[in-house]
Amino acid sequence: MQYFESDYMEGAHPRILERMMRTNMEKNPGYGVDTYCTEAREKIRKACHCPEAEIHFLVGGTQTNATVITALLRPYEGVIAAESGHINQHEAGAIECGGHKVLSLPQHDGKLSAEDVDKFINDFYADLNYEHMVSPGMVYISHPTEHGTLYTLAELEALSCVCHKHHIPLYMDGARLGYGLAARNTDVTLPDIARLCDVFYIGGTKVGALFGEAVVITRPGMIKQFFSIIKQRGALLAKGWLLGIQFDTLFTDNLYMQISQNAIDMAELIAQELQERGYRLLAQPQTNQLFVVIENEKMQELSKSVVYSFWEKYDDNHTVIRLATSWATRKEDVVELLKLL
Amino acid sequence: MQYFESDYMEGAHPRILERMMRTNMEKNPGYGVDTYCTEAREKIRKACHCPEAEIHFLVGGTQTNATVITALLRPYEGVIAAESGHINQHEAGAIECGGHKVLSLPQHDGKLSAEDVDKFINDFYADLNYEHMVSPGMVYISHPTEHGTLYTLAELEALSCVCHKHHIPLYMDGARLGYGLAARNTDVTLPDIARLCDVFYIGGTKVGALFGEAVVITRPGMIKQFFSIIKQRGALLAKGWLLGIQFDTLFTDNLYMQISQNAIDMAELIAQELQERGYRLLAQPQTNQLFVVIENEKMQELSKSVVYSFWEKYDDNHTVIRLATSWATRKEDVVELLKLL
Amino acid sequence: MQYFESDYMEGAHPRILERMMRTNMEKNPGYGVDTYCTEAREKIRKACHCPEAEIHFLVGGTQTNATVITALLRPYEGVIAAESGHINQHEAGAIECGGHKVLSLPQHDGKLSAEDVDKFINDFYADLNYEHMVSPGMVYISHPTEHGTLYTLAELEALSCVCHKHHIPLYMDGARLGYGLAARNTDVTLPDIARLCDVFYIGGTKVGALFGEAVVITRPGMIKQFFSIIKQRGALLAKGWLLGIQFDTLFTDNLYMQISQNAIDMAELIAQELQERGYRLLAQPQTNQLFVVIENEKMQELSKSVVYSFWEKYDDNHTVIRLATSWATRKEDVVELLKLL
Amino acid sequence: MQYFESDYMEGAHPRILERMMRTNMEKNPGYGVDTYCTEAREKIRKACHCPEAEIHFLVGGTQTNATVITALLRPYEGVIAAESGHINQHEAGAIECGGHKVLSLPQHDGKLSAEDVDKFINDFYADLNYEHMVSPGMVYISHPTEHGTLYTLAELEALSCVCHKHHIPLYMDGARLGYGLAARNTDVTLPDIARLCDVFYIGGTKVGALFGEAVVITRPGMIKQFFSIIKQRGALLAKGWLLGIQFDTLFTDNLYMQISQNAIDMAELIAQELQERGYRLLAQPQTNQLFVVIENEKMQELSKSVVYSFWEKYDDNHTVIRLATSWATRKEDVVELLKLL
Repeated sequence: MQYFESDYMEGAHPRILERMMRTNMEKNPGYGVDTYCTEAREKIRKACHCPEAEIHFLVGGTQTNATVITALLRPYEGVIAAESGHINQHEAGAIECGGHKVLSLPQHDGKLSAEDVDKFINDFYADLNYEHMVSPGMVYISHPTEHGTLYTLAELEALSCVCHKHHIPLYMDGARLGYGLAARNTDVTLPDIARLCDVFYIGGTKVGALFGEAVVITRPGMIKQFFSIIKQRGALLAKGWLLGIQFDTLFTDNLYMQISQNAIDMAELIAQELQERGYRLLAQPQTNQLFVVIENEKMQELSKSVVYSFWEKYDDNHTVIRLATSWATRKEDVVELLKLL
Repeated sequence: MQYFESDYMEGAHPRILERMMRTNMEKNPGYGVDTYCTEAREKIRKACHCPEAEIHFLVGGTQTNATVITALLRPYEGVIAAESGHINQHEAGAIECGGHKVLSLPQHDGKLSAEDVDKFINDFYADLNYEHMVSPGMVYISHPTEHGTLYTLAELEALSCVCHKHHIPLYMDGARLGYGLAARNTDVTLPDIARLCDVFYIGGTKVGALFGEAVVITRPGMIKQFFSIIKQRGALLAKGWLLGIQFDTLFTDNLYMQISQNAIDMAELIAQELQERGYRLLAQPQTNQLFVVIENEKMQELSKSVVYSFWEKYDDNHTVIRLATSWATRKEDVVELLKLL
Repeated sequence: MQYFESDYMEGAHPRILERMMRTNMEKNPGYGVDTYCTEAREKIRKACHCPEAEIHFLVGGTQTNATVITALLRPYEGVIAAESGHINQHEAGAIECGGHKVLSLPQHDGKLSAEDVDKFINDFYADLNYEHMVSPGMVYISHPTEHGTLYTLAELEALSCVCHKHHIPLYMDGARLGYGLAARNTDVTLPDIARLCDVFYIGGTKVGALFGEAVVITRPGMIKQFFSIIKQRGALLAKGWLLGIQFDTLFTDNLYMQISQNAIDMAELIAQELQERGYRLLAQPQTNQLFVVIENEKMQELSKSVVYSFWEKYDDNHTVIRLATSWATRKEDVVELLKLL
Repeated sequence: MQYFESDYMEGAHPRILERMMRTNMEKNPGYGVDTYCTEAREKIRKACHCPEAEIHFLVGGTQTNATVITALLRPYEGVIAAESGHINQHEAGAIECGGHKVLSLPQHDGKLSAEDVDKFINDFYADLNYEHMVSPGMVYISHPTEHGTLYTLAELEALSCVCHKHHIPLYMDGARLGYGLAARNTDVTLPDIARLCDVFYIGGTKVGALFGEAVVITRPGMIKQFFSIIKQRGALLAKGWLLGIQFDTLFTDNLYMQISQNAIDMAELIAQELQERGYRLLAQPQTNQLFVVIENEKMQELSKSVVYSFWEKYDDNHTVIRLATSWATRKEDVVELLKLL
C-alpha cells in the first residue's frame, strides 16, 4: 500500500526523536521557560530577521488559529478569510466558539485578494449601519493555502498594505509554511513574511515535528498577556520543552528547509510524470499537494493500492483526488506510486 | 417631511399606552409571572390553535434570536440561514458571540428553499470529515423575510418536512409577522406556523407595541429552563407585565391583525399608484415594504421631503430605495407621499 | 394587601407616561440617535459635572452589567466583586456566559473594601504563577449595595485610588443610585461618582422609569465601538427614544432626586416606628430597604396582608424579611403597613 | 541540584519513547482512528471493567477539563467544585471562558463532601429565585486532589449517590490518578471509579507519558458528537496515534501502576525520614506530594541545592513547601535530597 493521503502520517524527523530520547530524563521547568525553548526562539528570530519577535509554542493548528484570532480581536470584530480558508471550513466552528464571525470573501486559487479585502472594508464603512454589523478586525490567510497555492511577494505586500491602511492586523496560518518557502518558484521568504505579517505561525506538525506550531508576534507586546490566553484556551503544553527541542532541531542546520525541499522534489517528480502520461492536474502544482483529475473507474482500482484524499467530483466520469508528499516521502514510494498510476 | 423609512418610528398603538396609563400604579410581581402575561399567553395560544405552547416575552429581535438559537443548539452546531438573513447580516455577530456559526445558504427572494437545505445537510453528512465541520443544528427563517417576501404554505411545509427528516428544529423570526399574516395573497395562517415551526416569535416592536416579542415554543419543555437562559442573556424584563399588557392588548379584539392590515393597505395604495405612474418596483410587493427603482436625481430631490431607506445601487443612474408602511401609517401621509413622488 | 416586596412593582412616574402619550405618534429615528436621547445625555452630563461623558441607554440591569463588563475586560481578565454582589449571585451567570470569572471578595455590610482589593491584587501578582490564574481586570461595586448600604466618600475614593494604582477601571452598578444619592447621611454626590468611577450606570427601572439604565463612560472613547457591543449583546432598544424620553424627564426639574427622596422618607417613617415598637433591624437602614427581624409566627400572620421579601433565616424562631419602599410608595401605604405590623 | 518541584519535569517512560522511535516512520491515519488508539482503548476498558466505555485521548489537563465540562453542561448550568479545585484556581478561567460559572464549596483536605454538595443543591432549589441563579449542573472532583489527598470509597460512593439523586453527572479529574490508585491505604480502584463517575480522565502527562489524558465516558453516547467538541476546542491531536501508543504502553504489563508505585515509595521514604528527623508535615502524605513545614532560614539554604514548590506561608518564621516525587524519581535522588534536608 502506498500512502499519499496527507502530510501528517508519520511521526517526526529522526533527529527530533533522537534528541528527545537523549534528553528524556533531564529535568526541565514546564510551560516553555526552559532553555530549549529559549534557544529555539532565538533561532527562529534569526531566521525571520526579526530580533524583537515574541515567540510562543502551541500544539496544533486549530488551537493556534483560535487562540491567536481571539487574542487579536475585540468582541465586535470578525476575521476576514477566503471562503475556502481552514478556519471557515474545517475547524468545527472554533472561531465562532470563541465569539467571532468569519467574514468570508471569494477565494482565487485558494487565496484572498488585496482588492477584495480593500473593497469589502471600504463598503463596510460606507454603510451607514455598519455598527449593526460585524466589523472587519483582522485578515487571515494561509500560505500555502488549502489549495496548495502560494501568494507572490507582490500579493502579500498588497495585502499587508491594505491591512495597515485599515489599521487591522494580518495573520498568516503557516501550517505548511516549510513547503511554501521551499517551493521552486516562490519569491516569498521567511523574513518577508515576518516583515509583512503582524502575526504568523510556522507549522511543525506537517513539516517534520511530532506536533507543534511556533507563533511569531512580530511586534512584541502587541498581544497583552498572551501566555494567559494560551493557558485559558487549553493550548499550553505542560512539558513545553518538548516543543522547544523540536523547533530548535528544525531550525538547526537548515533542517526545516531541507526536509521541506524533499516534499517539493517528490511532488514535482510525480507531477512531471503524471503530466507526461496525460493526466490532467487541476492546477500547476506549487507545493506538496497535487490535485489529479482521474477517471472514476481508474480511481476505484487505484484505491486498492494507494491511499489518497478525495477532493471533489469533477464530472460524471471523473473525480479530483489529492496526493500529498511530505518531509518523509521517499523516492522509492514515489516510484512505486507511479507504477500504480 | 414624510417618514417612510421603517416600521418602528412611532410608539405604540394608543390602546396599549392607554392601558399602561390606567394600570400604571398597580403593583405587579416582576419577571412575567403576573396576570397580564398569563392572559396574554392564553390569548396567543388560542390564536395559534396550540393550547400547550410555552410562551415567553422578550424585549427585542436580536436578543430574541440570539437567546433562542443558543438555547436550541448544542456547542458544535450552527444555524442554517439565508445569506440575507437578519442574523447573518445585521445583528453585529450576536449568534457568533453566543458561540455558533451561521451556515448561510443562497437566498431566493430572501427565502431559503427546502431543496437547498436538504441538499446541504445531505452533502454535509456525506463528507467523511463532517465531524471536523460545523453540524447543521437548526434552520432559521424570517417571515416576512428581509426582502418583504413571504413563504407559501407549500414552501413552509417543505421546510418543516426537511427539518423533521433531519431531526433539527425549524425556527421562524416573526419580527414583522403581523404584516405577513395580513398580506393579501398569503395562504399561511398563524396556526399553520405553530404547526410547522418548533419555535417562532410574534413581533411586537414593529407591529404596534412599544417593544416586545412573544416567543412561542410549540412543544412545551423542548428547551429546559429557558427562563434562566433568558435571564442570563440579559433578555428578561424586570417589569414583565409591561410585555403582558402589550401582547394582551394586541391579541384582544383582533387588534394585531387589524393594525397589520392597515400597513398592507397603505403599501398597496402606494404600490398601485407608483406602478401606474411608471415606477419600477424591484418585485411585486407582498407585505409592507416597497423597493422602488428611482433615478438618482429624482432621489436627491425626494430626500428633501421624504425619509426613506437606501437599499442598493441599481445602476449608474438608478438606486433602489425602500419605503415601509406600518400599523401607524395614515392615509393622509400616503397621499402626501404620492404628491412628492 | 400592602406591597413592600421590591422597588419595581409599579410602572413609571406619571410625568414619564404622560410624555410618552403626548409624543407617541411622533416619528423618531431608532437606536438612540433621536433628540430626546441627545437632550437626556446633555442633562445627565450636567448633573454629573462631566461635560465629556459618553452616555448610552440600555434596558435592564443584568444586561447592562454583562455588556459593560465584557466591554471592559480582556479575555484573560475577571471582575472583582463582593461575594454578595448582584453579578456574583443573581444574574444567572451572565458574566461567565460572557467568558469572565467573578473574583469574589468578602463583603462588609455588602461592600468591598479598598484594603481587600489592594491586598488581593498585590497577592495575585506576588504569585509566581499568576499567569495561570484569572487576572483582576476591573472592580465592580454597587451603590447602594445589595444590602441597601452606601459607600462613604472616603471609601469610594480609596477604591478609586486602588483601581488607578493598579491600572484597572472601577465600575459602579447604580441600579438604585437615586436612593443612594437621596439618603440622609451620605456624603457621596453624583459628580463624586463621575469623578471616581470610570464607568457607572444610573438606574431607571427601580427609580421611576418603566425600564432603562443610563451608562456613563466618564472618559469618552474608553470603550471602542461600544454601540456595536450593545447591539451584539441584544441590549440595543430599537425605539431608543423611549429611553431618551424617560431619562430626559427624570433629569428635568430634579425629578430623579425628588422621587428618590420619597422612598427614603417613607423608609425612615417605617424604620423609626418599628424601632420605637421594639422591632430589631438588621442594620441601621441607609436607603430604601429595611431588613427586619421578625418572629416566625408573626411573619406567617403578616404574610396574609403584606407582600415582603424573604431575606434569610435569623434563628430558629426568627426570620429576616426585607421591606422596600420606592418612588411610588405613598404615605397611606406606610400608615396601613404600620397598622399591620 | 535536586529537583522535587513537580511531577512533570521529565519526558516519558523509556518504553514509550522506544516504541515511538520504532514506529516513527509507519504511516497512520490521524485523529485517533488508528490501531494504537483502538488497542489502548480496549486495554483501558478492561482495566476499568467497563466494556462499553467511550474513550477519547486529549493532550493536556486544562484542555480536558474545559472540553468535558462544556460538553456536559447546559448554558445556564455551572460546575460544583472545591474552592481549592484546579478549575477554580489554576486554569486561567478556562471554564468561565467556556461560559460556565464554577460554583465553589469549601474544601476539606482538598476534598468536596457529599453533605455539602447535597445541602448546596437542596438550598439552591429551595430558593424561590433559583432560576435567576446558576444551576448546579455537575460535580467536579480531583483524585488525588490538589492537596495530594484521596477520597475513600465511602466518600466517593456518597458523592456519586448525591449526584444521581440530583440527576447531575460526577466528573473526576485524574491528572495524577496513577498516584491515587497506587497509594498504600486507598480502597478506591479503577473499576470503582468507572462505576461511580459518569466521566473521568486518566492522567498521562504527570504519570509517565510525554503528554496526554484519556477521557473515559462510562456510558457511551452520553455526550453527543464529543469528537466535534474536542476538535472545536482545539484539543484534537492531528497525530492521534501518538496518544494511542502512549496509553497502550502504559496499560500493557501493568506499567501505569508500576511506575505510579515508584512515586509512592519514594514519597514514603522521604516522609518517614523527615518525620523521624522532627520535620512537621502539613498532613500525613497519601500520594506523591509532601507538604513540609520548614523554617524560613533553612528554606533559603535549601533553595541553593533543591528545587521545590512554594506552597504557602505557615507563620512568620515558617513556610510550607511542596516536594513531589514521580514515576521518574530515583532512589539516589531521594538519598541526595535527604542529605540536604
